[in-house]
Amino acid sequence: MNSLGRVFRVSLAGESHGPAIGVVIDGCPPGVSLAVADFAADLDRRRGGRPGTTARQDDDVPEIVSGVHNGYTTGSPMLVVVRNSGAQPAAYDELARTPRPGHADWTAWHRFRGFNDPRGGGHFSGRLTVGLVEAGVIAKKLIAPASVEARIVEIGGAASFDALIEQARAEGDSLGGIVECRVSRAGAGLGEPFFDSLESLLSHAVFAIPAVMGIEFGVGFGAARMRGSELNDPILDVSGRTASNHAGGINGGISNGNDIVFRVIVKPAASIAKPQRTVDLMTGEPAEIRIGGRHDACIALRVPVVLEATTAIVLADAGRLAAGLSGAGS
Amino acid sequence: MNSLGRVFRVSLAGESHGPAIGVVIDGCPPGVSLAVADFAADLDRRRGGRPGTTARQDDDVPEIVSGVHNGYTTGSPMLVVVRNSGAQPAAYDELARTPRPGHADWTAWHRFRGFNDPRGGGHFSGRLTVGLVEAGVIAKKLIAPASVEARIVEIGGAASFDALIEQARAEGDSLGGIVECRVSRAGAGLGEPFFDSLESLLSHAVFAIPAVMGIEFGVGFGAARMRGSELNDPILDVSGRTASNHAGGINGGISNGNDIVFRVIVKPAASIAKPQRTVDLMTGEPAEIRIGGRHDACIALRVPVVLEATTAIVLADAGRLAAGLSGAGS
Amino acid sequence: MNSLGRVFRVSLAGESHGPAIGVVIDGCPPGVSLAVADFAADLDRRRGGRPGTTARQDDDVPEIVSGVHNGYTTGSPMLVVVRNSGAQPAAYDELARTPRPGHADWTAWHRFRGFNDPRGGGHFSGRLTVGLVEAGVIAKKLIAPASVEARIVEIGGAASFDALIEQARAEGDSLGGIVECRVSRAGAGLGEPFFDSLESLLSHAVFAIPAVMGIEFGVGFGAARMRGSELNDPILDVSGRTASNHAGGINGGISNGNDIVFRVIVKPAASIAKPQRTVDLMTGEPAEIRIGGRHDACIALRVPVVLEATTAIVLADAGRLAAGLSGAGS
Amino acid sequence: MNSLGRVFRVSLAGESHGPAIGVVIDGCPPGVSLAVADFAADLDRRRGGRPGTTARQDDDVPEIVSGVHNGYTTGSPMLVVVRNSGAQPAAYDELARTPRPGHADWTAWHRFRGFNDPRGGGHFSGRLTVGLVEAGVIAKKLIAPASVEARIVEIGGAASFDALIEQARAEGDSLGGIVECRVSRAGAGLGEPFFDSLESLLSHAVFAIPAVMGIEFGVGFGAARMRGSELNDPILDVSGRTASNHAGGINGGISNGNDIVFRVIVKPAASIAKPQRTVDLMTGEPAEIRIGGRHDACIALRVPVVLEATTAIVLADAGRLAAGLSGAGS
Repeated sequence: MNSLGRVFRVSLAGESHGPAIGVVIDGCPPGVSLAVADFAADLDRRRGGRPGTTARQDDDVPEIVSGVHNGYTTGSPMLVVVRNSGAQPAAYDELARTPRPGHADWTAWHRFRGFNDPRGGGHFSGRLTVGLVEAGVIAKKLIAPASVEARIVEIGGAASFDALIEQARAEGDSLGGIVECRVSRAGAGLGEPFFDSLESLLSHAVFAIPAVMGIEFGVGFGAARMRGSELNDPILDVSGRTASNHAGGINGGISNGNDIVFRVIVKPAASIAKPQRTVDLMTGEPAEIRIGGRHDACIALRVPVVLEATTAIVLADAGRLAAGLSGAGS
Repeated sequence: MNSLGRVFRVSLAGESHGPAIGVVIDGCPPGVSLAVADFAADLDRRRGGRPGTTARQDDDVPEIVSGVHNGYTTGSPMLVVVRNSGAQPAAYDELARTPRPGHADWTAWHRFRGFNDPRGGGHFSGRLTVGLVEAGVIAKKLIAPASVEARIVEIGGAASFDALIEQARAEGDSLGGIVECRVSRAGAGLGEPFFDSLESLLSHAVFAIPAVMGIEFGVGFGAARMRGSELNDPILDVSGRTASNHAGGINGGISNGNDIVFRVIVKPAASIAKPQRTVDLMTGEPAEIRIGGRHDACIALRVPVVLEATTAIVLADAGRLAAGLSGAGS
Repeated sequence: MNSLGRVFRVSLAGESHGPAIGVVIDGCPPGVSLAVADFAADLDRRRGGRPGTTARQDDDVPEIVSGVHNGYTTGSPMLVVVRNSGAQPAAYDELARTPRPGHADWTAWHRFRGFNDPRGGGHFSGRLTVGLVEAGVIAKKLIAPASVEARIVEIGGAASFDALIEQARAEGDSLGGIVECRVSRAGAGLGEPFFDSLESLLSHAVFAIPAVMGIEFGVGFGAARMRGSELNDPILDVSGRTASNHAGGINGGISNGNDIVFRVIVKPAASIAKPQRTVDLMTGEPAEIRIGGRHDACIALRVPVVLEATTAIVLADAGRLAAGLSGAGS
Repeated sequence: MNSLGRVFRVSLAGESHGPAIGVVIDGCPPGVSLAVADFAADLDRRRGGRPGTTARQDDDVPEIVSGVHNGYTTGSPMLVVVRNSGAQPAAYDELARTPRPGHADWTAWHRFRGFNDPRGGGHFSGRLTVGLVEAGVIAKKLIAPASVEARIVEIGGAASFDALIEQARAEGDSLGGIVECRVSRAGAGLGEPFFDSLESLLSHAVFAIPAVMGIEFGVGFGAARMRGSELNDPILDVSGRTASNHAGGINGGISNGNDIVFRVIVKPAASIAKPQRTVDLMTGEPAEIRIGGRHDACIALRVPVVLEATTAIVLADAGRLAAGLSGAGS
């Protein structure tokens, strides 16, 4: 259940305050140059420690346990493990009884009948995106010369948002935002009709990122108010180049060679210092919760690198599948 | 690739103007009452023939080829076939050379190296949603007492839209819209953390519906401008009931027992009578296309029943998986 | 559950005495020449009507419902349907109460809580191998220049067995046998380490053929009594050619370029005219059953073409996966 | 590709002389008691160090990285890692050039274009079965009250084989054998018709064990020389109990409630001290190889616990799937 992909496959394991986060990457071809240092830049982008993000600091130096030999991928499954050096499980004791509104505490407790690890959200924590980012580092290599870039479009409704974040933080509150992802040079032909449409594959992966509440491709929700004659992208030549790119680079579930463009909405972090109403799971009585610990005033700030990783993973898999589908026989 | 689901599985086959549309439904438990008549109401909702929808009329009387015996499902795979009585392939001859803007013609030609069936969009046609609706009829039975209801929220930007559609139709144009889906009594505990979050599963399936360009859960894009203290739904009791339902019934990828609510954006139909710019795939020269045949001025009108079906399929599978995961050993 | 393969995928549906057998073949590349006539030779090999095989005669003229246009595969899923013209359901009425020893009647009744179609074994019938053979016809095209040939090694313990079969038939009994399959020119590099070893994939598929009770690769059970120094195949050159082929063309789960060789054991048909002990499922009392209808005195006679089909399906999928795994990025 | 199972899923990673072996176990229900000590007995059975097995000694103390909290499984994926303390990679240097006959060296080199880790067979090593055994420890808990027991039937053709093994070892050679597996109280109803028959699932998994060359269920190859009237197991009562168990507890791909019985053939270890013919991959010239290092004179001695583990994994998954398929709706 915690695996993604058909040919290039990623599997996640770990808990926020357990010993480590592990990710298994299967289906990577042999001969891709890979070193521990390659993970540093994207892991650093993902990590907190800046204005608006959590004060938690993990070292995040991954160990490549398998699948790499003499500096190159071997073609065997890669297991990459990052230790949770920054874990402070004691800070979360009370959460086991009083589920945080907007968080997975109650659903985890219900689904796993109270056996879930409640510390810092356990397996539901955004901490696990460290594994996504690692897999994304590899996927980005595989999809070259395609490149993925995600950027924050707005936070708290504004394109200039530093002061808003500081204000929310000071008030013990949090802000949501919108992140846009753009893929250049992905090439035409990725995705399948219907169930494995490229939008299906991308959205499936993107909603694995905690706090994402919506996704739109191309003009997205704007299309609801456009006419077909406005929306349709005129086709300019046999290579599929279009005069506009309202479709976001996808037609009929398959990439058309123009940039792939989509936006995701990131909700404000559920963990806030302000008091909130919840229930005591042991007594059944109403309770008030004030969440301590270290949190993000704006989780959207950390989403771009995770969104890039997720997108690259999907494209690497779609590219591998397309190669297989068009490949020579045995 | 054209299959959806892990335990309750649906596979689609067929082309718009081929002999028939087939759907295989695997993983349905035995003992579910099923007759051909059960498909009639939803197939009728899906069918065109009303203001704003295509004039194409297929009889849409399904044949249950397998998996049903004496009026009950047997537990074996069901193959359901509907003949394409309304096909008029001759109307689409010119499309093989001049791909329709906004449609899958160019990507299909590119991906399948010109071997695709171009008649009416071939395998990419909305005609295949007849198979989705059929599978949905069965899925709705499986998820009872949960019920799924989808309704049009707006078309062309308005909640009262009959005149807008008629106007667009008269001008040879088309309109987009927004459709909302609500699931009641689905129960808590559906979906998995991360890769198989309920939003991941639902969006994966929903983007298989032609013309969908976006999806948002709960308050969706509105969350980008809310604060955590506004968005978080206060938890009222140990059953997980919340004072508001901004989350759309899902936390941490798992249903929380409140209504599951999401909206999809449906683009205006790509096939319009107005002249459009495209390319002649044989000569490489620019071309103008005026699309004849029978089309929808507003495809959103036909989406609700398809969206319900898709949603029910996902929930039936998620329910089955949850039962397996919590089930007794061998 | 009734699907096989990761990239080249085959799904089966149907019952022995239902209206038809359907098979969906997904993941076939576009541009493969395919006509109804292409199925005739292998379907004819599969069909009964010769000494030792059932007298049941179906016409077995498949309808290609989808995925083929102008004589070539389109790359979309193919649905192929064969009507069950030879069905005589009335002959099987008593089986619903008295499960045949050695057959799936009791397990089907138990598993599907009595809702299974009991006529002629229903979904468990060897009749469904018609779908395997159809998929195999396509797979054989895909794996060219590799070729698959299966042949009977022995029946009733003898290489010359016509008289044995006639004798068994006359006595209302049945005989088992051994069938060998050999693949030439499959090339090296098919299969994966561990869970998707080529032996894993082949055996998985082969045990879908009713009546198969065992499989051995290369020298197989003989290896249990050999020493390593005898068994190991000396490697002759960098192309992997070996002096002997005791390994049956597979090392470490991956084809090594030599012929792939394996044998399967086919049990005697469970349906025999001789009286047998069983139970009456309604009364719980012991019962005697004498099976009427039309049956095979030696089902092994019909296995070679099914074994070839199954093998070709697996190799086509493995070849597609290998192409994907080694393929260029997106 | 290196994952097994649909609901209860196991994924393997690691190399013989890399830092560690990792296994991810997904789909385990919450609330199963689990401690590091639980792995000791089966890991000890798997480990070498006895007459006839390799002198390599790893400590094999697993770290449970995730999925367990307060002594119970949480329902989240479990990552279990065992360090390779006994690795001596220097012993394998020459193998990178001269592939060992009967081993995966050549296929690994070919498939992964020379990027594979050649030390001790790398990812193809029997060392990875440590992960299978760990997953098996958990699976055995899940399938209770079913129990799995595997035992050696013969080695070198004899039931009393200690002297034979010592003789082979002294001669720098190795012996094959046969191992039988029996499952009691698995219950009826596991497995699916056709592609996911219980034999398909079991054989798929069993051929992931290095050195297995064949499998037979029930009387297996003996069935080729029996008549239907001998082979068919008379049914004694409505619970499916049979007078004999020639079918090995499976009919129509589904367990029938009697003991599940099958045998596997284990080839003699490919790594032997005797000189063997091979090729130098760099020069293309013939070469002779004498394999040093630490090896098993009879790998079959170590197979029973691995076979038990593999079998338990398959049954746990089949049981989970059956629970899902028969489960209540959403």
